[in-house]
Amino acid sequence: MMALECDGDIIVIDAGVMFPEQDMPGVDYAISDISYLKENPERVRAILITHGHEDHIGGLPFLLAEINAPVYSSRLTNGLISVKLNEHRNLTGVQLNVIDPYSKIDLGAFSAEFFPVCHSIPDAMGIAIDTPLGLVIHTGDFKIDHTPADGQPTDFSALSRLAADGVLLLLSDSTYAELEGYTESEHVVGEALDHIIAEAQGRVMVATFASLISRVQQVINAAVRHGRKVTIVGRSMQNNVSMALDMGYLTAPPDIVISMAQARELPLDKIVIMATGSQGEPTSALVRIANGDHRDIEIVPGDTVVISASPIPGNETLISRTIDNLQRQSARVLYSRVAKVHVHGHASQEELKMMLSVVRPRYFVPVHGEYRHLIMHASIARSMGIPESNAFVLEDGDVLELTRDHGEVVDKVRAGPLFVDGHHFWNMDSTILKERIRLAREGVVTVVATLDSRTHAPVGRPYVISYGFIELDESQDLFQKTSNNVASYLEDLGQHELDLEEVKSRLSKSVADFLYNETRRRPTVLTVIEQI
Amino acid sequence: MMALECDGDIIVIDAGVMFPEQDMPGVDYAISDISYLKENPERVRAILITHGHEDHIGGLPFLLAEINAPVYSSRLTNGLISVKLNEHRNLTGVQLNVIDPYSKIDLGAFSAEFFPVCHSIPDAMGIAIDTPLGLVIHTGDFKIDHTPADGQPTDFSALSRLAADGVLLLLSDSTYAELEGYTESEHVVGEALDHIIAEAQGRVMVATFASLISRVQQVINAAVRHGRKVTIVGRSMQNNVSMALDMGYLTAPPDIVISMAQARELPLDKIVIMATGSQGEPTSALVRIANGDHRDIEIVPGDTVVISASPIPGNETLISRTIDNLQRQSARVLYSRVAKVHVHGHASQEELKMMLSVVRPRYFVPVHGEYRHLIMHASIARSMGIPESNAFVLEDGDVLELTRDHGEVVDKVRAGPLFVDGHHFWNMDSTILKERIRLAREGVVTVVATLDSRTHAPVGRPYVISYGFIELDESQDLFQKTSNNVASYLEDLGQHELDLEEVKSRLSKSVADFLYNETRRRPTVLTVIEQI
Repeated sequence: MMALECDGDIIVIDAGVMFPEQDMPGVDYAISDISYLKENPERVRAILITHGHEDHIGGLPFLLAEINAPVYSSRLTNGLISVKLNEHRNLTGVQLNVIDPYSKIDLGAFSAEFFPVCHSIPDAMGIAIDTPLGLVIHTGDFKIDHTPADGQPTDFSALSRLAADGVLLLLSDSTYAELEGYTESEHVVGEALDHIIAEAQGRVMVATFASLISRVQQVINAAVRHGRKVTIVGRSMQNNVSMALDMGYLTAPPDIVISMAQARELPLDKIVIMATGSQGEPTSALVRIANGDHRDIEIVPGDTVVISASPIPGNETLISRTIDNLQRQSARVLYSRVAKVHVHGHASQEELKMMLSVVRPRYFVPVHGEYRHLIMHASIARSMGIPESNAFVLEDGDVLELTRDHGEVVDKVRAGPLFVDGHHFWNMDSTILKERIRLAREGVVTVVATLDSRTHAPVGRPYVISYGFIELDESQDLFQKTSNNVASYLEDLGQHELDLEEVKSRLSKSVADFLYNETRRRPTVLTVIEQI
Repeated sequence: MMALECDGDIIVIDAGVMFPEQDMPGVDYAISDISYLKENPERVRAILITHGHEDHIGGLPFLLAEINAPVYSSRLTNGLISVKLNEHRNLTGVQLNVIDPYSKIDLGAFSAEFFPVCHSIPDAMGIAIDTPLGLVIHTGDFKIDHTPADGQPTDFSALSRLAADGVLLLLSDSTYAELEGYTESEHVVGEALDHIIAEAQGRVMVATFASLISRVQQVINAAVRHGRKVTIVGRSMQNNVSMALDMGYLTAPPDIVISMAQARELPLDKIVIMATGSQGEPTSALVRIANGDHRDIEIVPGDTVVISASPIPGNETLISRTIDNLQRQSARVLYSRVAKVHVHGHASQEELKMMLSVVRPRYFVPVHGEYRHLIMHASIARSMGIPESNAFVLEDGDVLELTRDHGEVVDKVRAGPLFVDGHHFWNMDSTILKERIRLAREGVVTVVATLDSRTHAPVGRPYVISYGFIELDESQDLFQKTSNNVASYLEDLGQHELDLEEVKSRLSKSVADFLYNETRRRPTVLTVIEQI
């Protein structure tokens, strides 16, 4: 998410979610902290969405709950947003607008025009925003593909026209700024899939992202060519495919896309199954198939499985394990490391240079990527003649102030991330994640002791229970000793006036030290002292 | 670890550890279950070690504690083993033997001869084992590098000589069987490092594996050539470098390797720092530098940091974060994705074919790699003319029986992994990992209630405490309600005869459901009921 502000008017571009990393256990996802917008709700003129991926629309329900500004997006993106908002029925009066490419919208101090870009979802757009200081161009996520699977290349003629009178600021996708050369065309993948489906002796399964409509189209095309039917497995992919068919983003002859029940009547070499699970998601169709616990589908010798995706960073191990398990079940598995079954959706270095060269902006802000990608993209911009003082690597919350002849980061506002966990939100300062990581490392031991509130003498035996710490058969003797230690510790306290918090904290430490000596592990120790 | 058995004699090859994956929280490492060897300790004639990496020697202390067979390895490997065993003083009477390449050792039914291979540590060896049925060749970890940094190429003449009379079985490294072509020479990295150190305006830091002695040599060579001194940061790398210097595996002119105190007296452009942390290990020197909390070293503008390693699968996120943080501290960072600063130590497909073509074995077992790598290597072997029935993809514990003209997997023995956690070992069946992962996801809530042992009536208020579940300020009201619910639940039980376990389990479920309704989260609920 980013916001542009001029003469008191604000427009917001994209409102995504971030998926949790491995050191964020239990977090559903993270969203932006919109404190700044909440202070200025009436000044937000519009929310412009570049395309329908979760990292661009997933935060909309949270944003719209606070800021009821009109949303503008392309037709397919609007469809995906509608589906998402339907799950959040508390939102009322939301203003969703479909905007065609090249048509202008007036937004107070701004006016905006969308233009088509090629990305791994149909109907992706960049945005040209006219401001009193000059034109701002936001590429959205893009690559340059002259033979894209969905027939929508990035429109460089429009960009040239828009940029003709000079561009104040370019905000450009940095995700693959590390990669030299050009991102290969989707065409290459289409050919590879066609070849695989043509040659396969048995059933073919293709796993990819649920939103990668163009990949589904490539598979349907190959299936038609080689006399196979296609069945879709996995709820999110089924929803997307039927919406894309309805809206015309996906075309298939009648009876090509069939149900699982229909597929079961066909010989295996007449079937292509498309499924989710290309990231090794534990509950996905593909992973359940790999583990041999899918309700409908079991791998049989002769099956070919194509993982038509590359790993999102952090998912490498899950994906590798899925590939291993599919092979253990006797499938032949093709994946991006060994076959040309995926190209990614973002521009590589030469494409980024092309964008910079067509737009020739005065100021440059690399967007969408991790810090090292932004740094790399800024250095590419420098190599293209953008002065170092005019390229800004920004972090969440940085406020960049631009005039016609000067740019400077002048402030930092609260921008998140906010972690969403069930009904709760917490920010980076929360201790919850640290506590969870600590629990995961060594488990938890709870000690419960009862004191006589008058004499302070222990009543009964202290209880010790644990979870994630030690096997039951090893614990009995150890916890017996722990309980004895706690009892004698409490007896030694005598009948002085007790600071209960102090006693609990000392007791926890004493138990932790005892357990460490016995086991060389440091579980979290929680102590309860009851007084009766 | 693998074992060969013939005529009642057993030899063991390598005894490594496996490092824990992200779903094994708190596990120090995993070792092989050696139940089979423990049943037959007197039959184990020898333990042969191919090279000194942890995944080949790390399990020796556990193996030797049970099986006191003589260990044979090359000189450097033996040095690394000695250092390791010194940390385990309970081991007595261990027989460590240095074996020179090409000299034969008689081991009952077997005789073994080591031969040099090129790998990412000096003194790596393959092993040719003569058996009554024919020759077995184990490559160890290898690649083919005609210009290696340590001057030790894989000895294909020795292999040709050994293989001249036919080879029964080849066991060959599969780690990079997915990669087409050849692994590039270390020479390429030497040149890149030389260039980086020559051009750098300020200080240069190079992070790599502590055991990658040849990389240290390349950095020392470049430092000498460009008038810089080298200082080593990180205990494990310091130990390895001083041992390698002592043993002659590393050569440096006097006064080139200096202490941190000496380095502090020099201008920044006269210094190269070598450090551990190339995998983003949280307690390593590089990560502490990246986070700005290293005792001695702070990044200053002009610093160049080289991450001379590629990510071990699972470490990608940690490494990326380290790179980002170094750049935030204003360092220029070069890493394998953007510069030729690392080549890996294992053979790619063309090298694997070369090995198969020189050895021409009757039977083939791909080793050292994950399942998909073994499968790929077996398919490479098939493409080289090894019949499918003679190539065996084995998993831990599989017992392959070979005769002169038939091979078959005939049995499965217990082989692990065993997880090592402090003083404790547990196997895959343990519930501890599942419990820890559950704790990490939603934290823990402990409920403590006291009943009158005679009347079964609740005494006092039930306590509710939590960890890793909810912020303190949100918890007070919620836990108040929880406590009330528990109290009324217990009151409703009345004065019947109580099955305490049953009550605890029902109470836990009732609290879990209540908390889920309130928070949409499912913490682990531990319940203690005291009777007084």
